[in-house]
Amino acid sequence: MKRSNSNTLERCKKFFSKAKNSFTGKYQLYTGEKLNWFQVIFRLEKSVLPAILPWVIVSGLYGFLVSLLYRYGVPIGFPHKSGVLTNAILTFNVGFTLLLVFRTNTANERFWEGRKLWGSLVNTVRNLAQGIYIVVKEQSPKDKVQKEATLRLLVAFAVAMKLHLRAECLDEQVESLMSEIQYLKLQETHHPPLQIAFWIRDYLQHQHDRNCLNIYQLTALHKLVDDLVDILGGCERILKTPLPIIYSIKLRQLLLIFCLLLPLEIVTNLIWWTGVITAFVSFTLLSIEEIGSQMEEPFGHDPSDLPLDAICNTMQHNVEELITLAPSSEFDWRV
Amino acid sequence: MKRSNSNTLERCKKFFSKAKNSFTGKYQLYTGEKLNWFQVIFRLEKSVLPAILPWVIVSGLYGFLVSLLYRYGVPIGFPHKSGVLTNAILTFNVGFTLLLVFRTNTANERFWEGRKLWGSLVNTVRNLAQGIYIVVKEQSPKDKVQKEATLRLLVAFAVAMKLHLRAECLDEQVESLMSEIQYLKLQETHHPPLQIAFWIRDYLQHQHDRNCLNIYQLTALHKLVDDLVDILGGCERILKTPLPIIYSIKLRQLLLIFCLLLPLEIVTNLIWWTGVITAFVSFTLLSIEEIGSQMEEPFGHDPSDLPLDAICNTMQHNVEELITLAPSSEFDWRV
Amino acid sequence: MKRSNSNTLERCKKFFSKAKNSFTGKYQLYTGEKLNWFQVIFRLEKSVLPAILPWVIVSGLYGFLVSLLYRYGVPIGFPHKSGVLTNAILTFNVGFTLLLVFRTNTANERFWEGRKLWGSLVNTVRNLAQGIYIVVKEQSPKDKVQKEATLRLLVAFAVAMKLHLRAECLDEQVESLMSEIQYLKLQETHHPPLQIAFWIRDYLQHQHDRNCLNIYQLTALHKLVDDLVDILGGCERILKTPLPIIYSIKLRQLLLIFCLLLPLEIVTNLIWWTGVITAFVSFTLLSIEEIGSQMEEPFGHDPSDLPLDAICNTMQHNVEELITLAPSSEFDWRV
Amino acid sequence: MKRSNSNTLERCKKFFSKAKNSFTGKYQLYTGEKLNWFQVIFRLEKSVLPAILPWVIVSGLYGFLVSLLYRYGVPIGFPHKSGVLTNAILTFNVGFTLLLVFRTNTANERFWEGRKLWGSLVNTVRNLAQGIYIVVKEQSPKDKVQKEATLRLLVAFAVAMKLHLRAECLDEQVESLMSEIQYLKLQETHHPPLQIAFWIRDYLQHQHDRNCLNIYQLTALHKLVDDLVDILGGCERILKTPLPIIYSIKLRQLLLIFCLLLPLEIVTNLIWWTGVITAFVSFTLLSIEEIGSQMEEPFGHDPSDLPLDAICNTMQHNVEELITLAPSSEFDWRV
Amino acid sequence: MKRSNSNTLERCKKFFSKAKNSFTGKYQLYTGEKLNWFQVIFRLEKSVLPAILPWVIVSGLYGFLVSLLYRYGVPIGFPHKSGVLTNAILTFNVGFTLLLVFRTNTANERFWEGRKLWGSLVNTVRNLAQGIYIVVKEQSPKDKVQKEATLRLLVAFAVAMKLHLRAECLDEQVESLMSEIQYLKLQETHHPPLQIAFWIRDYLQHQHDRNCLNIYQLTALHKLVDDLVDILGGCERILKTPLPIIYSIKLRQLLLIFCLLLPLEIVTNLIWWTGVITAFVSFTLLSIEEIGSQMEEPFGHDPSDLPLDAICNTMQHNVEELITLAPSSEFDWRV
Repeated sequence: MKRSNSNTLERCKKFFSKAKNSFTGKYQLYTGEKLNWFQVIFRLEKSVLPAILPWVIVSGLYGFLVSLLYRYGVPIGFPHKSGVLTNAILTFNVGFTLLLVFRTNTANERFWEGRKLWGSLVNTVRNLAQGIYIVVKEQSPKDKVQKEATLRLLVAFAVAMKLHLRAECLDEQVESLMSEIQYLKLQETHHPPLQIAFWIRDYLQHQHDRNCLNIYQLTALHKLVDDLVDILGGCERILKTPLPIIYSIKLRQLLLIFCLLLPLEIVTNLIWWTGVITAFVSFTLLSIEEIGSQMEEPFGHDPSDLPLDAICNTMQHNVEELITLAPSSEFDWRV
Repeated sequence: MKRSNSNTLERCKKFFSKAKNSFTGKYQLYTGEKLNWFQVIFRLEKSVLPAILPWVIVSGLYGFLVSLLYRYGVPIGFPHKSGVLTNAILTFNVGFTLLLVFRTNTANERFWEGRKLWGSLVNTVRNLAQGIYIVVKEQSPKDKVQKEATLRLLVAFAVAMKLHLRAECLDEQVESLMSEIQYLKLQETHHPPLQIAFWIRDYLQHQHDRNCLNIYQLTALHKLVDDLVDILGGCERILKTPLPIIYSIKLRQLLLIFCLLLPLEIVTNLIWWTGVITAFVSFTLLSIEEIGSQMEEPFGHDPSDLPLDAICNTMQHNVEELITLAPSSEFDWRV
Repeated sequence: MKRSNSNTLERCKKFFSKAKNSFTGKYQLYTGEKLNWFQVIFRLEKSVLPAILPWVIVSGLYGFLVSLLYRYGVPIGFPHKSGVLTNAILTFNVGFTLLLVFRTNTANERFWEGRKLWGSLVNTVRNLAQGIYIVVKEQSPKDKVQKEATLRLLVAFAVAMKLHLRAECLDEQVESLMSEIQYLKLQETHHPPLQIAFWIRDYLQHQHDRNCLNIYQLTALHKLVDDLVDILGGCERILKTPLPIIYSIKLRQLLLIFCLLLPLEIVTNLIWWTGVITAFVSFTLLSIEEIGSQMEEPFGHDPSDLPLDAICNTMQHNVEELITLAPSSEFDWRV
Repeated sequence: MKRSNSNTLERCKKFFSKAKNSFTGKYQLYTGEKLNWFQVIFRLEKSVLPAILPWVIVSGLYGFLVSLLYRYGVPIGFPHKSGVLTNAILTFNVGFTLLLVFRTNTANERFWEGRKLWGSLVNTVRNLAQGIYIVVKEQSPKDKVQKEATLRLLVAFAVAMKLHLRAECLDEQVESLMSEIQYLKLQETHHPPLQIAFWIRDYLQHQHDRNCLNIYQLTALHKLVDDLVDILGGCERILKTPLPIIYSIKLRQLLLIFCLLLPLEIVTNLIWWTGVITAFVSFTLLSIEEIGSQMEEPFGHDPSDLPLDAICNTMQHNVEELITLAPSSEFDWRV
Repeated sequence: MKRSNSNTLERCKKFFSKAKNSFTGKYQLYTGEKLNWFQVIFRLEKSVLPAILPWVIVSGLYGFLVSLLYRYGVPIGFPHKSGVLTNAILTFNVGFTLLLVFRTNTANERFWEGRKLWGSLVNTVRNLAQGIYIVVKEQSPKDKVQKEATLRLLVAFAVAMKLHLRAECLDEQVESLMSEIQYLKLQETHHPPLQIAFWIRDYLQHQHDRNCLNIYQLTALHKLVDDLVDILGGCERILKTPLPIIYSIKLRQLLLIFCLLLPLEIVTNLIWWTGVITAFVSFTLLSIEEIGSQMEEPFGHDPSDLPLDAICNTMQHNVEELITLAPSSEFDWRV
């Protein structure tokens, strides 16, 4: 009997240790950092705060003003029992809520589409790397060097695409992935990733001309480079075409009206709390809106953005492992 | 200690300079212009105003009439406490709101599908350009000229497609991208982009007959031209099949009823403000509806439309850079 | 100063002439006809009226009966202030509205999918036509005749598919697009479009056997014929599998209950208007439902259906232009 | 004048005969049967009734109990005017309604995805049949017999897949479509459709080895067999992974709470009708839920399920027509 | 007559036995176990309980505190009739509900996308297995052994991918599917599935070099291996990119506010029941939220997760059956 008891006890302990985790559990950010939820909220809100704080303060003051006027007898609050007016306001609120949901949905889809494109990039780079490694024949040690340089160009394509999407200059990671001549050339072009794609194609065609690459496999590998360029174009599309601007303006207009109406709705009940509540509500709504507009362009450095650095490093890691490990394995396992 | 203080100060400054941006920040239009939000609103509303202004004025006058009648004792407003009637109206409002959201969603999807098609066009043109450049062998300098002419035909396809979608005549940009004979021929045809696609195919087939282009690669390039024609057909589909007309008519009917009912709902509370509020609400709803119907056909010149000119110029730029830069790079980097 | 004034005047005129358009503007039907909105409504409503008129009359009479009973003192209307009952009705209304939106959405998606399939048909026919024209070699004038006959068979496929979807017999347009022997054969088969697809494949294979068509290009063209058959199957799928019948029955049940409850909700306020309002509301809802069920099968002759005749004519036009114009252009532009 | 009158009369007649149809119109079930709407409702409800009747009776009795208690003075109904409680209930109702809509949507998507897969199956079988028929060369009459046997194996694949999805044994339709040896083999395997796909591939490879089938076309046909296996896997996926079970349990929990609360909401107004109304409402909701869970697995024998038998027969019909008609047509029309 | 009676009786019995099933019916879990609904609920709730129980207890205590304060006369509950405040709360509730639905939808889509990827994995493994089995020629018995080893590597890929997604070490199932040397190599790599994909490609290329595999079919099989890697990347994407963390934080914030407001809404009506009801409502909402966040990562061991073990076993079973049965069938049926 005793054993069963102790078992129950242990299970309880385990149970509550798990429960405790939910209080103090840590969230993993995309960047790989683990923070508890206070830090996460702090980190995330910090990124939107500068943009919305002035508005929050203004709406708080406005709410305070309304409660002041109400106290001094100005009949500024909506009367308690006005069934149909209530109605009109409710409709407005529902419509406004739906528009906010629509905005959130759209931003989320865009974010997710960006993620899918980078996921496809990882896949395509892996397939191209394995494909080139296995398929292209080596006739001399120099061929091997060139092949490895081309595999690194695949990673360089991804990094250059990241920098291109962020409108940043080429950095040392790109430099480390190619020869010096290439790096100089790259700095002259307006569209580095396209240029790198061109070099990869050129390498493949050249190997075909040297009879190291079959025409069918050349065509199949060209198809994968086409996919690279498609992914590049897809990301540019997301970057350059946000939600039609008219919708975000309409949403802000409605948000303004909502914040103007809110104190009038609640002042008769909450009196002096009006200002605080209004500030809090406007803070919530504005931060949702602001986050939505940040997520629409998921290629930047914001904490809600995609972890492009981590993804690029994953690709580099995979390619390096392929270069290091594969050759030896090629012979052993067939025995 | 002092240093930390000044640091805080600096951070504060930076913080508020960022905050200030949100007040005076500039929006980037698709066309590349940067305007502050007053200008953006002005620009956008201007495009819908002529179509909706008369209706806004009429509904404002109607609202004023209702408040006049109410003041002179006509029992025209809904009574304050009619729970179930309120209900019926609320249901109508919710249904109406959902239909408006449905309309907005559909228009947005159509806009976004149009954007995707043009994004694919950019990708396909880039792939075809690089493919043709690398794969087709040159036996004489004349071949090089012809190849470059064909690359420009790719851009011409995009521009001709843009003009075809806008039902405009061929312009000088098209003319500058092809020979004179071709331009004359093109003016005779009813469907210029199809004709250009035909020429590109013809060029490819001709190179194959001259043994400058392998049969596999010919097939792969033909596939890309097929994609061009698919994109063209997709855009025509969006252009020619708007939301079934019956829905936009139903929506307008409901919108009319909504504007007729609104003053009766609010007149008992707002009295003389009724007209103004009614005009404002009808303005908001009508402009949402109007913008929706503008966005459905995203290939025109409206400020909410797709920046087709900019996209075409991007393609032309990419192709020109390929022609200029590539040949020299071809030799250097392999060293 | 004067000039500026006159300019303002002109702009005003232009502004209002555009505004005027929105009053008297004409809608373009899919068929190409342009009608003003009275005619459009009339045309569209006419197609649904016969099916829903009896129900509208019945619900109007029922509304009148309710108001009659109410006047004679039967306590048939819902009491003014029954918060929670109101609630139950509101929930029902919201649920009903959502189901109606669901139905509308589904019908619209089906309509749009049908449109996409026909759009792909246009693309595939264009690609096949250009592909066959360019790729198949001609050894004798007879070959050219046969090639053109095959191009026309592509159009015949589209027309036969249209007729097959409408469950109509072959008409003279089909007859004009093929030889007499073929037309006779076609009348024997149960599935004319499949038979035509078979002939096109057979022609391609035959050209391959005569060494006029490369094996790769044969395979690529076969792939396009596969796409034709896929499109055909997709349209049959839409035609044969409407929204699960149980949903449209449930929707009608709820619609009936809605119309039964409505007069009880509004009779205490509207009294004698009850009948008219009930008839109008039931008219609106029933016509939405009816239009939805019409749009689900978008291949017929209803005014909301897809303009299949126009699409088929576009294809025929494109193919004829290809046959007429292309050969001459083939030689000129390469100079 | 008279003529016009009679014309009007005739049109009226026609109009009302059409109207009459909407009263007595027949619905076409997927199985091809035509029933009027009483029969359809009866047929459909019958399939869900056994599962939900007990619950309906229980909730009816519970409603009756509530009205009994209310009559004897137990203050069991919600008070008339409790604005905020009303609110909480309303929120619950809206949330519950949204969850029901979510469930319906998911079930419908799953149904429709199943339909699409079977539509693709029809297309792929048609393409494979025509492809094999045209492409594989015949060197002897025996070849023709074998080819026709393979075409029938395509149909056998579809039928075996149907039976596999329904967890049924092989039936005589499968037996009639293959040789006796094959049928015996098939009974030994655990996964008949996969085995049949293997045979089709084997036949194709064998024809290639005999030089009756080109390597490219072999690859293209293999691709189509790959599609067959993809479709099979897709249907298995739908079958084996219903909506996560936790959702349907949560939905039933909420449904239970809803039925417990409903009588309390309406008893103060409806008194003795409470039982009947509660039973009816619970019947409607439960049948929606039940239909949803039936439609999730659309491959069975329920009246709402997909008409797999009819689809299989269509395929068989198409293949038989191909075998019968095609050979003769092959020669005639080229003249 | 009697017969008919007994028939009715029997039908009744059958009817009720079916009805009874709905009371005691068993649900099939993904794992294949069959449990009745008490066990299912218990199993499922158990998995989320540890994480949410503390919160449930806290909110219950809070609700009890509110009712205590209310009883002692603190005017803590919302007043009965405050139309517009009610309104503001209702709007909040609707918005909150919509966000919860959004979250549920997103989690479900992610779950379903994961399921689709694993479904595609099954299809691709089947296609690759049949393809390799049929297409690769055997020149010696050793070839057959190697071929079967490669088929098992396909299963090993799936199992290794499962372990990789779960961040678990290689287990004996993987070990049993490959040679010892391979298993040792695999333990060194950081990304076992990628390594296995490399081996499969290497095997195919090697067979091509030995003239046992045609170049076209090699390319087609390489394409299928590309698909394997794509599926792997897709699953990694789902695993590594949950719903943007900001949304789940916002949702929890709103959930907290909701639970804080609820007792104030209902205390005036329910008094001492407040605590119980609050605890129950918070339990329902928290478990929905928790389940959502569990389903987002559908590759683990939770009872709501995908049955990856079962899927892997299905693949192993199919491959083993192919190895066992196929060879004999290859000869028989062609007779």
